[in-house]
Amino acid sequence: MAEIRIAVVGVGRMGMTHAQNLAGRVRGARLVAVTTSNEERAAEARHCCGGVVVYPGLDELLASERLDAVCISSSTSAHADNVVQCAAAGVHIFCEKPLALSLADCDRAIAAAENAGVKLMVGHVRRFDAGHVAARRYIESGAIGKPLVFRAISGDVDPPPPSFADPAVSGGLIVDAMYHDLYLSRWLMADEVERAYAEGGALVDPAIGAVGDVDNAVVTLRFIQGAMGTLFVSRTCRYGHDLRIEVIGDEGAVQIGYFRQTPVRLLDRQGVHHDMPRTTPDRLSEAFVVELQAFVDSIRDGVQPPVVGADSRATLEIGLAATRAMHEGLPVSI
Amino acid sequence: MAEIRIAVVGVGRMGMTHAQNLAGRVRGARLVAVTTSNEERAAEARHCCGGVVVYPGLDELLASERLDAVCISSSTSAHADNVVQCAAAGVHIFCEKPLALSLADCDRAIAAAENAGVKLMVGHVRRFDAGHVAARRYIESGAIGKPLVFRAISGDVDPPPPSFADPAVSGGLIVDAMYHDLYLSRWLMADEVERAYAEGGALVDPAIGAVGDVDNAVVTLRFIQGAMGTLFVSRTCRYGHDLRIEVIGDEGAVQIGYFRQTPVRLLDRQGVHHDMPRTTPDRLSEAFVVELQAFVDSIRDGVQPPVVGADSRATLEIGLAATRAMHEGLPVSI
Amino acid sequence: MAEIRIAVVGVGRMGMTHAQNLAGRVRGARLVAVTTSNEERAAEARHCCGGVVVYPGLDELLASERLDAVCISSSTSAHADNVVQCAAAGVHIFCEKPLALSLADCDRAIAAAENAGVKLMVGHVRRFDAGHVAARRYIESGAIGKPLVFRAISGDVDPPPPSFADPAVSGGLIVDAMYHDLYLSRWLMADEVERAYAEGGALVDPAIGAVGDVDNAVVTLRFIQGAMGTLFVSRTCRYGHDLRIEVIGDEGAVQIGYFRQTPVRLLDRQGVHHDMPRTTPDRLSEAFVVELQAFVDSIRDGVQPPVVGADSRATLEIGLAATRAMHEGLPVSI
Amino acid sequence: MAEIRIAVVGVGRMGMTHAQNLAGRVRGARLVAVTTSNEERAAEARHCCGGVVVYPGLDELLASERLDAVCISSSTSAHADNVVQCAAAGVHIFCEKPLALSLADCDRAIAAAENAGVKLMVGHVRRFDAGHVAARRYIESGAIGKPLVFRAISGDVDPPPPSFADPAVSGGLIVDAMYHDLYLSRWLMADEVERAYAEGGALVDPAIGAVGDVDNAVVTLRFIQGAMGTLFVSRTCRYGHDLRIEVIGDEGAVQIGYFRQTPVRLLDRQGVHHDMPRTTPDRLSEAFVVELQAFVDSIRDGVQPPVVGADSRATLEIGLAATRAMHEGLPVSI
Repeated sequence: MAEIRIAVVGVGRMGMTHAQNLAGRVRGARLVAVTTSNEERAAEARHCCGGVVVYPGLDELLASERLDAVCISSSTSAHADNVVQCAAAGVHIFCEKPLALSLADCDRAIAAAENAGVKLMVGHVRRFDAGHVAARRYIESGAIGKPLVFRAISGDVDPPPPSFADPAVSGGLIVDAMYHDLYLSRWLMADEVERAYAEGGALVDPAIGAVGDVDNAVVTLRFIQGAMGTLFVSRTCRYGHDLRIEVIGDEGAVQIGYFRQTPVRLLDRQGVHHDMPRTTPDRLSEAFVVELQAFVDSIRDGVQPPVVGADSRATLEIGLAATRAMHEGLPVSI
Repeated sequence: MAEIRIAVVGVGRMGMTHAQNLAGRVRGARLVAVTTSNEERAAEARHCCGGVVVYPGLDELLASERLDAVCISSSTSAHADNVVQCAAAGVHIFCEKPLALSLADCDRAIAAAENAGVKLMVGHVRRFDAGHVAARRYIESGAIGKPLVFRAISGDVDPPPPSFADPAVSGGLIVDAMYHDLYLSRWLMADEVERAYAEGGALVDPAIGAVGDVDNAVVTLRFIQGAMGTLFVSRTCRYGHDLRIEVIGDEGAVQIGYFRQTPVRLLDRQGVHHDMPRTTPDRLSEAFVVELQAFVDSIRDGVQPPVVGADSRATLEIGLAATRAMHEGLPVSI
Repeated sequence: MAEIRIAVVGVGRMGMTHAQNLAGRVRGARLVAVTTSNEERAAEARHCCGGVVVYPGLDELLASERLDAVCISSSTSAHADNVVQCAAAGVHIFCEKPLALSLADCDRAIAAAENAGVKLMVGHVRRFDAGHVAARRYIESGAIGKPLVFRAISGDVDPPPPSFADPAVSGGLIVDAMYHDLYLSRWLMADEVERAYAEGGALVDPAIGAVGDVDNAVVTLRFIQGAMGTLFVSRTCRYGHDLRIEVIGDEGAVQIGYFRQTPVRLLDRQGVHHDMPRTTPDRLSEAFVVELQAFVDSIRDGVQPPVVGADSRATLEIGLAATRAMHEGLPVSI
Repeated sequence: MAEIRIAVVGVGRMGMTHAQNLAGRVRGARLVAVTTSNEERAAEARHCCGGVVVYPGLDELLASERLDAVCISSSTSAHADNVVQCAAAGVHIFCEKPLALSLADCDRAIAAAENAGVKLMVGHVRRFDAGHVAARRYIESGAIGKPLVFRAISGDVDPPPPSFADPAVSGGLIVDAMYHDLYLSRWLMADEVERAYAEGGALVDPAIGAVGDVDNAVVTLRFIQGAMGTLFVSRTCRYGHDLRIEVIGDEGAVQIGYFRQTPVRLLDRQGVHHDMPRTTPDRLSEAFVVELQAFVDSIRDGVQPPVVGADSRATLEIGLAATRAMHEGLPVSI
């Protein structure tokens, strides 16, 4: 089959990574173009992705290129409109998470893709990390028995700027930074959430409190079949980018993640010392390649992508419920 | 100073451990007697603690021996009465946790000791484990900055018999098995809990559900200064006796506990394999010695013991609030 | 500067990896051609490295393409001749390790590159692994004091076919499979070896004994400044691809490598289980990219590559001495 | 059966540990006396081992007490004479390692015990550590296939005073500090050593060189059935008391020991930090109890102790051969 002609919409940090992976590491795809109105970004894209054409925006891209697919890495607020526009153009769509910050926008984007008969995959990158894949396989094999509890921590080293932390832009801490854990809880527990409770606070960064968000929160989940979840998310995890999940069943448990980046330890009179991951690429660079490969393969094979719009909508729904629970101080049913 | 003459009241599994430690490893104390009405237990005590006298009960013990102190390891329901009786006899008291299952009984026991002018220490053994001690020292030194979140897991390999799981006997899962974590959260966070929420279920053992308890639960805590806690407790942790705590601050974190008992790994074609602790003594045998040493030292030095009745009362109060939250489905303030 | 036009000579497993990395991940280089006389290999190269031209051999390649550089991944016995021919053609050379199996061939290759004024880098990939780089940096910083002992293990899961194990083809176990450790001992200890002793045997695979080689060996090194080395190499390390180095100094130590591949653990009634690396790419895939990037950068920047022909020659010299010591049962001076 | 009446001969650091264990933790034994001519030591023994009688020396002890057994912890040079004297007195003997520093003295001690019909156990404490016991069990079960290589490291934090390092007193570094590894190599490989080679140097502490010893050494062993050993011993292991053994077989491997003492980790902006064992008791305190229990049990049950005089003699023989190899620069057959 011919190569999938693909373009990246928006080459911020995340989009540039996608562009490089599409240019050099994803098989069966050809990166033909990117969009950005930023000159520096355009120059960097030209440098790292030989031969790529740069357009100022999505209109120009769709008007000029014959594409099979797009990878949307624009700002979250633009996702739904971008999806609708690309669906109308008849191209398959990979969209960064979250699909949107409201359920209505999710529904609009999902409907547009369905009506146009194009694929809509949402970027849930950790779903493609070897550790998470192996954990899911262990669970499906029965190695841990019936899943009882989902435990997660997601810690980022540094808080984002207040302009992004603003819940109107980011969706708030839980929607933004606990998103992956909320999705993974559904995927690993093979169940749906029926109730959420949360506590949170702007305990470290007053600027985050000033825009109406919190910088640390804990969330309790109740699943339909009785299992439970206990999650912690932090924007101020100075010791590292701490992504860990445990699923404990009635026969065993799986633990994903570890405290080590570079394979070296220093031993001295003070003890034993080693580093740990500090950034998302430290921990997940391979998963970004596997994720886009899965998207390209789903087009080539004519099958449904492994993560679809409804997954992002269901994840958002939990995040919104937990956020409301946090603000109201009461559990919220979904 | 002369040796502290001490007796152990009740030599079930826990009491027998205390008796052996007092006989062989705690300095400055002399184990003179134990109480038990069970012939086998009496024989075992005589065998392992050379020269010890066995009495059928506390009445006979107090009537016959001149004691400086007692170590109460009777059933929980007898604790408060035992404390009151020993206080009246003027002996210093070490009592296994929890002091009682009601705040009223705690108050009664605490008052009795105060009025009699005897020491009342409650058995919070993990407080004396080297890992917990080091973690507290790190926190006090400022190494992790301001504590933001307390994360804990306490898993027992096998559920207790339904006769014990009965909340009227054990206090219920949270009071009984999350007790240490609730105490340690106050001790490590150096703060008090103001609100608790919980989810739980009899997910594995119907016999536990039949007596009105749950076998797995998660608890969310809110501390007065804004910090949060997220705790999980399980009676069905088949993979091992899993005791772990993390305290995450705004500059770093401490993690207590690990997944390894015997210092050996097996590597074969299937991968790397090792064991983990399966029982309390696996993990805490040294701490039981240090704990009783601290009690004996506090008598010898005329100082307050490191854990007192009020600590057990405050811990119970959180446990009762979390239990109520679990049953009512709403957060409970303390 | 324009892109470096580069071709890969020989696309066996190793050469195909180099080709893919040059096509997709090394910046500043353009993979223009590969050589192979194998039709399947040619097809795979065309598939994975879009637009690459395939030539049957080096003669045809050099006759047809204007190249800046080559990456030689042919069989070891062809390395020296390939280097001489490419040097004559005036292209910069990256050659897989070892440069040759005799010191005379090393000398011939090194001289050819020098006379032609082209760069000659030899593929010492572990030198570019993040763990090894960090260890070297710790040592240079003085964190471990004066290096006293170099400890290494290199274990491959499965023995090679007897046709390769034949010392005339592979150089024998020590030259072939301990090569990286011997090089790294010089690099990390910042010293040269003056004496080697070895014990070895065909303890597992009689086919290896039949062609005159051993499948397991230990080597003792003495460095000029007094430090020591103790190394173990195995072709029959069924539990995994075990690459570990420790350097112990008079103030501390560094340890490179670990026992974990996928970031997941399974815990069940039997204990804790995880996998470990089983292949070279498991452990070193990033290092292969960094290595070729260093080669390309050295051409672009007009500087000496980080590993040169003399490094491979010095490494071979130790390997030959240790091999002789093993056969003679006596230490051999270098 | 009545309790074994036992005395400790010599209460230096090691003997005091034995005395405390016999007084408080070993079942079926009663510590009745210790010998020391040092007043402070005598006071400490009286304090920690309630009711113990102190004699100035072995003559007085044997003249005054009716004993079943002795635990000899005198200086190494006195071991053989002490054993002969106690054997003549008809008491069973536990003697700290090594039994003597010459094969002739070993033979004399072994013969005395045999002629007197008393048990002679030598203190090989690591043989009783849970990690070593589990490793041996794995090997015996066939879990690693045929043992091919024994790898060991023994590192002490600080060098001993030159007066002890003197080979005439200590036997030299290899005999003194690699002793346990040499014994364990025979025990774990279930084979005997036929040849040894060594390199060593006074690389850190000139005072050790001045008395004719080395502070760091590596030893290569060849076993009769073809397996090999590669061992490193250091008196200057400032980062900790590093005791690790690996046995690699043709189907798997076992690894004994780990880098962690207190069960706590600190995570901060610099990375992850934890301590490691720094002293023998850190790592082996339980094993000292198990070891003496095995001695007492062997008397009670009338069976041979698990470690006998011949084990110490065979270990010494390897140590002397390796020491000679180091000084002569040639392999030495045994």
